[in-house]
Amino acid sequence: MPKLPLPPGSTIGILGGGQLGRMLALAAGRLGFDVAILEPEVGAPATRVAAHTVVGAYDDPTALAALAKLARVVTFEFENVPAASVEHLTALGVAVAPGARALAIAQDRVAEKTFLNEAGVATVAFAAADTAQAAQEAMASLGAPVLMKTRREGYDGKGQRWVEHAAEAPVAFEAVGAKPVILEAPANFVRELSVIAARGRGGEIAVYPLAENHHEKGVLRRTYAPAKVTSETADQAERIAAKILSGLDYVGVIGIELFELADGRLLVNEIAPRVHNTGHWTMDGCEVDQFEQHIRAVAGWPLGPTHAHAQVEMLNLLGKEADAWAKLAGEPETRVHLYGKRDAKPGRKMGHVNRLRPL
Amino acid sequence: MPKLPLPPGSTIGILGGGQLGRMLALAAGRLGFDVAILEPEVGAPATRVAAHTVVGAYDDPTALAALAKLARVVTFEFENVPAASVEHLTALGVAVAPGARALAIAQDRVAEKTFLNEAGVATVAFAAADTAQAAQEAMASLGAPVLMKTRREGYDGKGQRWVEHAAEAPVAFEAVGAKPVILEAPANFVRELSVIAARGRGGEIAVYPLAENHHEKGVLRRTYAPAKVTSETADQAERIAAKILSGLDYVGVIGIELFELADGRLLVNEIAPRVHNTGHWTMDGCEVDQFEQHIRAVAGWPLGPTHAHAQVEMLNLLGKEADAWAKLAGEPETRVHLYGKRDAKPGRKMGHVNRLRPL
Repeated sequence: MPKLPLPPGSTIGILGGGQLGRMLALAAGRLGFDVAILEPEVGAPATRVAAHTVVGAYDDPTALAALAKLARVVTFEFENVPAASVEHLTALGVAVAPGARALAIAQDRVAEKTFLNEAGVATVAFAAADTAQAAQEAMASLGAPVLMKTRREGYDGKGQRWVEHAAEAPVAFEAVGAKPVILEAPANFVRELSVIAARGRGGEIAVYPLAENHHEKGVLRRTYAPAKVTSETADQAERIAAKILSGLDYVGVIGIELFELADGRLLVNEIAPRVHNTGHWTMDGCEVDQFEQHIRAVAGWPLGPTHAHAQVEMLNLLGKEADAWAKLAGEPETRVHLYGKRDAKPGRKMGHVNRLRPL
Repeated sequence: MPKLPLPPGSTIGILGGGQLGRMLALAAGRLGFDVAILEPEVGAPATRVAAHTVVGAYDDPTALAALAKLARVVTFEFENVPAASVEHLTALGVAVAPGARALAIAQDRVAEKTFLNEAGVATVAFAAADTAQAAQEAMASLGAPVLMKTRREGYDGKGQRWVEHAAEAPVAFEAVGAKPVILEAPANFVRELSVIAARGRGGEIAVYPLAENHHEKGVLRRTYAPAKVTSETADQAERIAAKILSGLDYVGVIGIELFELADGRLLVNEIAPRVHNTGHWTMDGCEVDQFEQHIRAVAGWPLGPTHAHAQVEMLNLLGKEADAWAKLAGEPETRVHLYGKRDAKPGRKMGHVNRLRPL
């Protein structure tokens, strides 16, 4: 295991070379760290701001060994890191954060909701089903409609569909890939909120103000933060974050997606064991943003403050929308963040802007 | 010449791989640019956050050609870039900013003060001397004491000394290197201030609030910003910045060091055609810091806002002082910036902190 807190000048490894890895690398650079990226694609966004790149699959033992040689502390930008890769790195003496348990739970929607409920955190009612028939039977007790999702993988609305009647469950099961699924009761929420929080290696917790999120076609479009909420709601979110972080013995930043119900209760929709798109507002709304906070946590540094100093509207730039960079850069209230991606495929996250107003 | 404004995904070249180059590279990365560093030293701070590095001397035609192949827009982190290098890059079709005129003037203290006075900007009285005898004669009219400085090079108090009597001028001339010098009358200032300003490719100007600077042994120790000044003083500084930027047909960020006299007048001490240590406070005190502002200017982008949203005390971390990183990172009001330098030589700038208070 590395000596912690990790001194500046050390190298931090990151699995994944996309925009989250890039923003983590830039934050690490501000604190005097070098970064080593492990990523299958040559020239990925994060690799172009990193001191070292290992090109290879996330489960390639040679690539993992090369990363371990460069970096004694490793983190990741996405939750589908193979468990075996974390074990492999750990066996090589690397401190991987967040840890294997957080990954395992975030990779399986049934394990995730089971953990949450056991930790005293409310979710929608749910059931697991491994076959089409089991899915149909589960709907008998859960009721209809349900949201059917594959237990593993799938993001931004992929691998999921609504099922209106139990009789349609088998068709839906085939449509999402004939793989084990979770069935979720509807939440009847009034707003989608999220909370970005961090836990340090000593167990200390720091929670950012709540954010209000608006999705389009399953993809995050806008975040408003700090969200207008009562102090009871803010307290509720902090308690939820603390239960999850402590329950997972978590190290790093976590994104927790919430449903706000009409009666004020918060249900957890899902957790992402990484920096999160709904936390991008912190880059211009807080003194220490989620990326620096994550680097601080995994490096064993003290956590930074989380209060907001501006009201922020974060807007994702999808596909060709990023072509408006010159106009956006000319808006005095707009801070522009672009990811250096070369190919603006439709719907691809190319950047985001934070529009600021005084608090 | 490159097409401007330079689109994200393009590469920006930077001459110099120190901390200023590093912070420029991190800012360029946020906007989606790649960076190519030209730097003689392998593994210099900026190279470790850059997509490309050309290792070579700043006047090596092969290295310059390699940089020109990577980047159509080139800037620099230090003012002693050889004029021939800028000419060489320009001949290769590269847009170099700030331009050759700003460099030539900033490299020669006599040319600098002559330009300033011709532009209607006040300085201390001064005289040029190429020989020991000429220096002694000049003191007959300038009076004593004078501050003798080499005309070229020298920074952080190096290559300069006070001369108390005309008879001592020849000894001082030998001591500073027996090279052409400038003799400067004392300023009798009450405070050292500085103003960081930027000019875009379309001639638009943006000026940050004034900063108050405290030096120790010729090296910047602390900056307080925004400085407590009257609106008359702020206006005076803005007019000075505008005269200098327009007079040089400048593109990029400039650092202008000022003496504030007891009667409120501002004299220009010196100008630095680059991002400036007294502008580091903008990293946490402003929405767009001096590094992003410089990248915006040289890339032909619109300039960003310059107002402060916090009161900042910037403290340079010299040599072993940076070893206190863990303590500093634990102070809630303190933002830590470290440069990734491996060798903490005494007095070497290893990082800085910005301590924030509400405005």
